[in-house]
Amino acid sequence: MKKRINGVFSVLMTPFDGNRVDYDVFAKQVQRLSGTDVAGYVVNGSTAEFVHLTKEEKKKLVETVTLNRDPDKLVVVSACEPNIADTYDICAHAAAVNADAMLVCPPYYFKHTTEEIKQYYTELADISPLPVILYNIPFFTQELELGVIYELMNHKNIIGIKDSSGNMKRIMHLIDKAKDTDFSVMTGTDDMLLPAYVGGCTGSMTALATIYPEKITAIYKSVKVGDIEKARVVQHSIMEDLRTADSQSFPEGYKRLMEEVSRIKFGDKEV
Amino acid sequence: MKKRINGVFSVLMTPFDGNRVDYDVFAKQVQRLSGTDVAGYVVNGSTAEFVHLTKEEKKKLVETVTLNRDPDKLVVVSACEPNIADTYDICAHAAAVNADAMLVCPPYYFKHTTEEIKQYYTELADISPLPVILYNIPFFTQELELGVIYELMNHKNIIGIKDSSGNMKRIMHLIDKAKDTDFSVMTGTDDMLLPAYVGGCTGSMTALATIYPEKITAIYKSVKVGDIEKARVVQHSIMEDLRTADSQSFPEGYKRLMEEVSRIKFGDKEV
Amino acid sequence: MKKRINGVFSVLMTPFDGNRVDYDVFAKQVQRLSGTDVAGYVVNGSTAEFVHLTKEEKKKLVETVTLNRDPDKLVVVSACEPNIADTYDICAHAAAVNADAMLVCPPYYFKHTTEEIKQYYTELADISPLPVILYNIPFFTQELELGVIYELMNHKNIIGIKDSSGNMKRIMHLIDKAKDTDFSVMTGTDDMLLPAYVGGCTGSMTALATIYPEKITAIYKSVKVGDIEKARVVQHSIMEDLRTADSQSFPEGYKRLMEEVSRIKFGDKEV
Amino acid sequence: MKKRINGVFSVLMTPFDGNRVDYDVFAKQVQRLSGTDVAGYVVNGSTAEFVHLTKEEKKKLVETVTLNRDPDKLVVVSACEPNIADTYDICAHAAAVNADAMLVCPPYYFKHTTEEIKQYYTELADISPLPVILYNIPFFTQELELGVIYELMNHKNIIGIKDSSGNMKRIMHLIDKAKDTDFSVMTGTDDMLLPAYVGGCTGSMTALATIYPEKITAIYKSVKVGDIEKARVVQHSIMEDLRTADSQSFPEGYKRLMEEVSRIKFGDKEV
Repeated sequence: MKKRINGVFSVLMTPFDGNRVDYDVFAKQVQRLSGTDVAGYVVNGSTAEFVHLTKEEKKKLVETVTLNRDPDKLVVVSACEPNIADTYDICAHAAAVNADAMLVCPPYYFKHTTEEIKQYYTELADISPLPVILYNIPFFTQELELGVIYELMNHKNIIGIKDSSGNMKRIMHLIDKAKDTDFSVMTGTDDMLLPAYVGGCTGSMTALATIYPEKITAIYKSVKVGDIEKARVVQHSIMEDLRTADSQSFPEGYKRLMEEVSRIKFGDKEV
Repeated sequence: MKKRINGVFSVLMTPFDGNRVDYDVFAKQVQRLSGTDVAGYVVNGSTAEFVHLTKEEKKKLVETVTLNRDPDKLVVVSACEPNIADTYDICAHAAAVNADAMLVCPPYYFKHTTEEIKQYYTELADISPLPVILYNIPFFTQELELGVIYELMNHKNIIGIKDSSGNMKRIMHLIDKAKDTDFSVMTGTDDMLLPAYVGGCTGSMTALATIYPEKITAIYKSVKVGDIEKARVVQHSIMEDLRTADSQSFPEGYKRLMEEVSRIKFGDKEV
Repeated sequence: MKKRINGVFSVLMTPFDGNRVDYDVFAKQVQRLSGTDVAGYVVNGSTAEFVHLTKEEKKKLVETVTLNRDPDKLVVVSACEPNIADTYDICAHAAAVNADAMLVCPPYYFKHTTEEIKQYYTELADISPLPVILYNIPFFTQELELGVIYELMNHKNIIGIKDSSGNMKRIMHLIDKAKDTDFSVMTGTDDMLLPAYVGGCTGSMTALATIYPEKITAIYKSVKVGDIEKARVVQHSIMEDLRTADSQSFPEGYKRLMEEVSRIKFGDKEV
Repeated sequence: MKKRINGVFSVLMTPFDGNRVDYDVFAKQVQRLSGTDVAGYVVNGSTAEFVHLTKEEKKKLVETVTLNRDPDKLVVVSACEPNIADTYDICAHAAAVNADAMLVCPPYYFKHTTEEIKQYYTELADISPLPVILYNIPFFTQELELGVIYELMNHKNIIGIKDSSGNMKRIMHLIDKAKDTDFSVMTGTDDMLLPAYVGGCTGSMTALATIYPEKITAIYKSVKVGDIEKARVVQHSIMEDLRTADSQSFPEGYKRLMEEVSRIKFGDKEV
């Protein structure tokens, strides 16, 4: 049976000291979440600027999470390499250091047909030692078509999707198709957590769950117990911060907010 | 003070007999909504194929609604002409026959700058005898930028927006910015009514509220009284129908569903 | 046999006096082209703001051209109505007043499938009393797919295409497929007349051929006689004007240039 | 003074044996161009699937070219890494093995502002030991805006652009702005070589110059000597092959054509 992915996941950011990853600050970021109600960590996601990291850096970041993790929380490792061999390499390493699941975006730069994308996920899921979560992020890669996701839902090693499109129509159809299965639908959009949770998302994977773990878990728990009004108040308390973050380059705006809230210096890689 | 737009609005479809509008069937469609809990009608919207109608046909359709209306329900008239003079003409007619508000999309075919779109709405709202509702429908016209909407919210004759983007991130920022004002944010997307209402939309303007008025008003009322589970059950009961409708050309899929449910023959204009 | 469309066509602009079409100025615009080497006129195109004109205005503009035409020049009438019935009505009128061909864009506002667009053109061409020219203008309507155009080339009443995409790869494949037929491929882009003519376009339909008829016909004739250097000098002499026109709203920049060059006051419709 | 980039450049493909680069076949591909009139090689471009190669593979491919080059031909190295540090590393290596110029695409995956892209190129060109050629390829990365290119033209270490948009309007404005400078404008589109050369492109960088070096250089030389008819005949002789290649996944269609023409087995990386 599939492992269910539920609750609030914190998407970690990557701190830099000049152009080098600052693993000490990164460890503090992980430790800061201990004792909170977040369900897990996402390492090396888009917000972590994975495109700017070497494979060695990405692996060391995963190891830093698994060494500093709260044992009750899951570790989800983003593996968005441009081909199966490199993506599998990241999966094998994640399994070796006891991570829990992989988050995999479609191959990028080149455009691929729907059939190629389906085949990519199927082949990877067939061999991955850890379960695979699909990742739809149309701002950066090709949109995963709904029809393909409906098919991939049936793969026993594909356990869910993180959808960062913000498109609630899409997400509601995913929820509807997944509702009698153990496939998890997660939103990747902080700005719409309340409607996404109420609509049926089993959880979320977002940057604000790293910056404001109490607020984001409060929205989640309030929805669970039916206190929509409390969820609404907390949701509205983060909207202005989100507008400020979005007015800057991605993901710099989120790192500046993290620095302000956590008083930890994050730095940016010179691009 | 602005007139608040709340509740479930039924977007009417246009029946054809050959290439001619079938006003008798159209009148039956209006009468069929009497006694339901829908708050009003939207006439000559996208689903009504306004681009295929002459100005005379559009005016006669408005008159058919005002003659057959349930007096408790509002009449919202879509006025999506390509310039202010023609749009104003539709507004003046609507006011003359006692309609209640206008729904106005950005001018289409040509692309316009943000400033031109802002000016278009401002000039129209300045002279329109009926209050204006903005209409964001990026599948067919240019997206209304959030910054422009934030500014237009302050115009005393612009009372709300129908947003048919399906983008819940956008909608949540609109709701957040409008929350201490009397500006109404409505969704135009049947597939996401539950999350939209819970997220703070004051209502909806959709085709399924014409086809299934009891179901759509049940979702709305269940959210209002906090019965999320009931709302969820009804929302899921319409998802398959929506997938079927979307698999056909727009708006034919909706008209076929209407015929099946209402047993009224709708017909299509030959395009 | 198909009527070949060759040479430089002048896309006419629509002058306004306030919100009313100024037919006197329009007639002067037509007369100004008499004695030049342009092959014909295009009336009611995008640059003529057809979306802002009533059907009556459009018909009167066509009549003004046919009354003031140089008898050696062809009259091409743009018929971009949103459905076949209205488009046919424009075709029938054009034939009645002795215009020569129709320029027809795909139906706009709604999105259509490839098959629907093919059917639209086929049905129209079957009944149109004047030959039909396809119109690809992806900035304003859906792109006509190459595969559909290859099929429509075989219709005996579809005689060519005006392609305003600026995409020379597309255009070269059209030219290659049409090279042993009597189907004409025309560019709609003043900025690339030299490469388009040399690449095999049989002609052009552009606004600068109205503003600078001598310059544009000089490029065409220089290419015909193999004087590439002269064509190049003239092509480069219009590039700065095109950048200036494009830096303004379309088509206002072209109308301002026309006023400057022709010393005829054109005016804009208030949109 | 800037080094002028003129003539026909052959974009090399990367042969694979299973998932490993086949350097022997790659060397044969380079040697096959000796004695032809091509002006140089482009290594590790999009057609070479650089996104599927490790940095070590990319460097060894560059070394294979410099070891097997015809000494009269230039070596252009594509350096499309996602940040300046990695891109600089490729530049330094290319200089160390006596390559001649760098071809640099905008950073991809994340979206960047115009100002960020301008800064990226400026900083890289400031430190690169080899001159930089801009690379516009909107199918895979963000479009380089014309205004930014006009500014970057003035940088003494930025010597030209490869534009693979197919948009001849764009290219003509680049040519017009560059016409009194030593900035080179190259097309990356085999389908439009004749119009691009005649329009003023100083050369081209394309895959068919690797597959059919005689044909592509024949088009170039024919245009140079004013034999447009010969250029046209050769241009049309490659159009059907291009349609066949484009009907397959990129760049597989080009590799299949290369195998057919050269009788060298190329292989594909398993993606």
